[in-house]
Amino acid sequence: MGASGYTGSELLRFLLVHPKVQVTHLTAEKHAGKALSDVVPHLSGYLDLKLQPLDPESVPDNIDIVFAALPHGASAKIVSALYGRDIKIIDLGADFRLSRGRYEKWYGEHPCPELIKEAVYGIPELRRDEIKGAKLVANPGCYPESSILGLAPLLKNGLIESHNIIIDSKSGVTGAGRSPSLDYHFCEVNEGLRAYKIGEHRHMPEIEEVLSDYSGREVNVMFTPHLIPMDRGILSTIYVRLTKKTTTTELLNIYTEHYAGEKFVRISPEGVYPSTSHVRGSNFCDIGMRVNPDNNTAVIVSVIDNLVKGASGQAVQNMNLMMGWDETEGLTGPPVFP
Amino acid sequence: MGASGYTGSELLRFLLVHPKVQVTHLTAEKHAGKALSDVVPHLSGYLDLKLQPLDPESVPDNIDIVFAALPHGASAKIVSALYGRDIKIIDLGADFRLSRGRYEKWYGEHPCPELIKEAVYGIPELRRDEIKGAKLVANPGCYPESSILGLAPLLKNGLIESHNIIIDSKSGVTGAGRSPSLDYHFCEVNEGLRAYKIGEHRHMPEIEEVLSDYSGREVNVMFTPHLIPMDRGILSTIYVRLTKKTTTTELLNIYTEHYAGEKFVRISPEGVYPSTSHVRGSNFCDIGMRVNPDNNTAVIVSVIDNLVKGASGQAVQNMNLMMGWDETEGLTGPPVFP
Amino acid sequence: MGASGYTGSELLRFLLVHPKVQVTHLTAEKHAGKALSDVVPHLSGYLDLKLQPLDPESVPDNIDIVFAALPHGASAKIVSALYGRDIKIIDLGADFRLSRGRYEKWYGEHPCPELIKEAVYGIPELRRDEIKGAKLVANPGCYPESSILGLAPLLKNGLIESHNIIIDSKSGVTGAGRSPSLDYHFCEVNEGLRAYKIGEHRHMPEIEEVLSDYSGREVNVMFTPHLIPMDRGILSTIYVRLTKKTTTTELLNIYTEHYAGEKFVRISPEGVYPSTSHVRGSNFCDIGMRVNPDNNTAVIVSVIDNLVKGASGQAVQNMNLMMGWDETEGLTGPPVFP
Amino acid sequence: MGASGYTGSELLRFLLVHPKVQVTHLTAEKHAGKALSDVVPHLSGYLDLKLQPLDPESVPDNIDIVFAALPHGASAKIVSALYGRDIKIIDLGADFRLSRGRYEKWYGEHPCPELIKEAVYGIPELRRDEIKGAKLVANPGCYPESSILGLAPLLKNGLIESHNIIIDSKSGVTGAGRSPSLDYHFCEVNEGLRAYKIGEHRHMPEIEEVLSDYSGREVNVMFTPHLIPMDRGILSTIYVRLTKKTTTTELLNIYTEHYAGEKFVRISPEGVYPSTSHVRGSNFCDIGMRVNPDNNTAVIVSVIDNLVKGASGQAVQNMNLMMGWDETEGLTGPPVFP
Repeated sequence: MGASGYTGSELLRFLLVHPKVQVTHLTAEKHAGKALSDVVPHLSGYLDLKLQPLDPESVPDNIDIVFAALPHGASAKIVSALYGRDIKIIDLGADFRLSRGRYEKWYGEHPCPELIKEAVYGIPELRRDEIKGAKLVANPGCYPESSILGLAPLLKNGLIESHNIIIDSKSGVTGAGRSPSLDYHFCEVNEGLRAYKIGEHRHMPEIEEVLSDYSGREVNVMFTPHLIPMDRGILSTIYVRLTKKTTTTELLNIYTEHYAGEKFVRISPEGVYPSTSHVRGSNFCDIGMRVNPDNNTAVIVSVIDNLVKGASGQAVQNMNLMMGWDETEGLTGPPVFP
Repeated sequence: MGASGYTGSELLRFLLVHPKVQVTHLTAEKHAGKALSDVVPHLSGYLDLKLQPLDPESVPDNIDIVFAALPHGASAKIVSALYGRDIKIIDLGADFRLSRGRYEKWYGEHPCPELIKEAVYGIPELRRDEIKGAKLVANPGCYPESSILGLAPLLKNGLIESHNIIIDSKSGVTGAGRSPSLDYHFCEVNEGLRAYKIGEHRHMPEIEEVLSDYSGREVNVMFTPHLIPMDRGILSTIYVRLTKKTTTTELLNIYTEHYAGEKFVRISPEGVYPSTSHVRGSNFCDIGMRVNPDNNTAVIVSVIDNLVKGASGQAVQNMNLMMGWDETEGLTGPPVFP
Repeated sequence: MGASGYTGSELLRFLLVHPKVQVTHLTAEKHAGKALSDVVPHLSGYLDLKLQPLDPESVPDNIDIVFAALPHGASAKIVSALYGRDIKIIDLGADFRLSRGRYEKWYGEHPCPELIKEAVYGIPELRRDEIKGAKLVANPGCYPESSILGLAPLLKNGLIESHNIIIDSKSGVTGAGRSPSLDYHFCEVNEGLRAYKIGEHRHMPEIEEVLSDYSGREVNVMFTPHLIPMDRGILSTIYVRLTKKTTTTELLNIYTEHYAGEKFVRISPEGVYPSTSHVRGSNFCDIGMRVNPDNNTAVIVSVIDNLVKGASGQAVQNMNLMMGWDETEGLTGPPVFP
Repeated sequence: MGASGYTGSELLRFLLVHPKVQVTHLTAEKHAGKALSDVVPHLSGYLDLKLQPLDPESVPDNIDIVFAALPHGASAKIVSALYGRDIKIIDLGADFRLSRGRYEKWYGEHPCPELIKEAVYGIPELRRDEIKGAKLVANPGCYPESSILGLAPLLKNGLIESHNIIIDSKSGVTGAGRSPSLDYHFCEVNEGLRAYKIGEHRHMPEIEEVLSDYSGREVNVMFTPHLIPMDRGILSTIYVRLTKKTTTTELLNIYTEHYAGEKFVRISPEGVYPSTSHVRGSNFCDIGMRVNPDNNTAVIVSVIDNLVKGASGQAVQNMNLMMGWDETEGLTGPPVFP
């Protein structure tokens, strides 16, 4: 649902060639009645389906799983309508990521608060087992995905102070969606750089809640997003204060061990910091770091493709888990560089 | 051979996940001894091989097929050394694309002229059967690939004058390779646009020779390449004079029929012209066109990803044919947009 | 009038520091009531004026010259309302560039056809004297500016065939204006390249009319515009058939002589083709060329900054002429590279 | 000296149209003997000078001021050779920015340590009077320029803790200079984002020294530079801990007052954060900010054009002061947007 946006069409990029998946129903509110290839011409030749209006009633019964790539609020309504049926749901929007209190503080009233507790936050590296058994998964926000994976090993091991963590994030423009507006007009974005919603972005409470739950400590972060003149990619530069003296080498070892067995997390060698261009198009999160020996602080750099590990690839990974398939199915293609 | 350049690493992007392929030997003259992931970090985690020096002697015997992504001249020497062994070869360079006369006029003396006639020009839409039986395939140049596919139906059917065809091509910067030089320094290329080698580019005789052979008429073209501030993509705008009155609809039908059954050629609907961004990362060539009813001319627009259909994807398609596999194996992933 | 678009704000970039100009009245229909710096923050600190609604009545009497940077149709109405007053007008829109017949064929009914013959087409290199005495100047379109300057010397001297001239133009995205739309959303344009309105762009008849008038021969062109992922710049690659044998050197001499004394036309040395990045931000048109000795054709490459020589700089140059000032006043700043 | 790099040619962009300046001597070690327009074609037509080898002996006596845009080390040697003559010098390199101790720790042995104490650090907003009387000015580094202007009002007024200030800076690629290397090859930089030299960049001690001197307190910073796929612009996001409770409005007032009368510093209104694209091509530093009321921290965003306020424009401003001219002479042109 929501097939015509960047998240929706990126999801199709994976699903259309996923060995275990057949796509049978697509919605796109603004483009109902059109052929898929009219609105996403790059997928021309792959699937001969018409886009349907956004109506839960018309979702056929023989569907196993629904992906909702919709604005917040809209997706809660759909989820609510579908939840009673024998259909698994992955919501790529924000409606089921937060506890009710945080949701209502940051987004306003929730359309179906009773379902919030049914949802599992879909980040397999933290919650794999819960995802496997979930009927409703809340796919993480793009900024939180990069931030959480960058911070989890440190918080889990109690190696850093959990308050006033600074996350300076930089995102490509696909993160802003596909709706035209002056802010994302080519010439306004190109060859320029700006911060926005400093300390007020809705992904900030998401990071805080997920990491607090995960670490058992109250985590708070100062989060600043920036808009970068490129299509894809998020790089989060994370500044932390270490609770004991350590070295870059030791920290790298902790990350390597923490993520051992994880197929989609790669740790950069010492002295190397990851680039968003090295994960483009793939489901990888690459993480590099450096300890400042002078003042017991460290800088963690975490990069993802916001449309893949930050949205649609993560959703496919979650689907694989929910359906009992190999977690990497359909996601093994290497990054596209350059 | 030549794994560290853009063509080489793009080839690996396909080969590393190709269901029938195992990569066992890699060379990179300038980086011999390094791990693959040191020079192409985006492929980190895929293949634990060291880059070898460029030495035909050290190519193991149990290899079925070699890809040479080397500067011209260098590849002829390698091909020559390997040709006697039971190994198929796809040369992504220019050494076996032209007849001897044209080669020596445009490139200089040929290192092993006796092999020229053994090579098949690897464009399956024109020469599928020959490729299937070939031991040595000359993979097309990137500009020729887009130009030839854009012109073949017209020349085959005798619908246009075959002299003074104008091809105005625009290429992303990966077409220039990965060696640093001021010409391709970020700030020299970005936010600018220029023509180069007007009427003097070595891909011009390649287009002429292949199309002359294919159509049985002497074809000559005026070819102007341009450098565009983007990574990937070639768009060729082709200006032709029709030999009889026709319409855009009729022309589209001719193309659709000509390319019926071709998996990697898509014809754009009337009124729609293809964008390079809609083929990015994929092996498609998208073609659109318009007839000018006033003066019996037509404009054909042909787009490819220069690294895929214009190089490495085309090479994989050729490999599939040479090995007797399904022609699309490993190449079915949709374009990456945006 | 129309201060908030790219053409309007670029005009202000020149006017605000022009030694003989004081800006006293600004309109911006969509932003009336706002401060200038709210809609064009880069000009913050330069001018403390509020944007006014678009109303000819409210234009003060002590104004010497009005620039209209408005959509076609809108500007004719304004011009019509102001024409009777003692105010010179430079229209940066399309309303007074064409004869009535061509206008109505390509744009529809003209709001005030009686004024068409009063207007002078504002390209000083062709019509300097007429501009000096004009009350109403029609500032050229951006594509025509580059094409006309590229072709004028050849047509004036009868050196080329005047029919079926091919102009393959490439433009940065500012040429499409500042109104948000999916077509110019960052991620739709970035890293991609496409042709549009092939043989149907309204600048085609403008080029034909101006060059026909100038050369005294019926000129017709095949014009294909392309959208390039960059902010500023137009490069037109022009393909012509020479009427007699000539060389690149001879052709360069003809251009150099033709444009001798012109401050804003620079001829590139033999073997060098101009880049849009070398004229960025400036009022220059750089022209390079090559004769193909084999078939008596030539390729001319003409580059401008579409917002400067293709719009606002050209308008300032015209103002200087109309006011009797030094033609280069306020326009002497070098290009901004990179 | 060093006319062919980006800093050198940007300096010429200002000097060639500066009303009080005549450029009479240019050096460019790698291009000695060539005409200026051969290496910087955008300046073609402005100045008919040949580039000279880098030799202090050949600097004519009738020169008032020399700008050295050279690699560190090289410029100290030149300065040393010229210092005894009646010539003022502005060094755009790093050789005279630091005290001897810091210089030798970060750069190695100094070629002429005795001159260090003669040099004034050229940031007029902090040291205007000293610059006026200086014979040798050390022009600030680009990252320090944006960081220092962003932090000066807070440190001067003792409003923040002076240790562990975090500066997360993002720079366009011109900051890396014009020498080709794989790191700055178009396709390696475009559509990607990376951090580099985390905690190890030589601009870090420069920021610390200048701000410590200015505030009379020991300032230390954690500095992380990032490379952004754009030509020009630096944005520094600065994270500070306030020493007393304050609001965004109060902080904005402090900045506005602190920089009252400064022509090249603009403070963004509350709720607005500056973009690098709004200062491009100009000598402005735009500063915006937000106080986080929850935890007594603030985020300051400071943007400059790295080639202008971060290098060549700053140098012209310093020249104006040293020569006793109007400080803004030659620098009044508005930013170039887009």
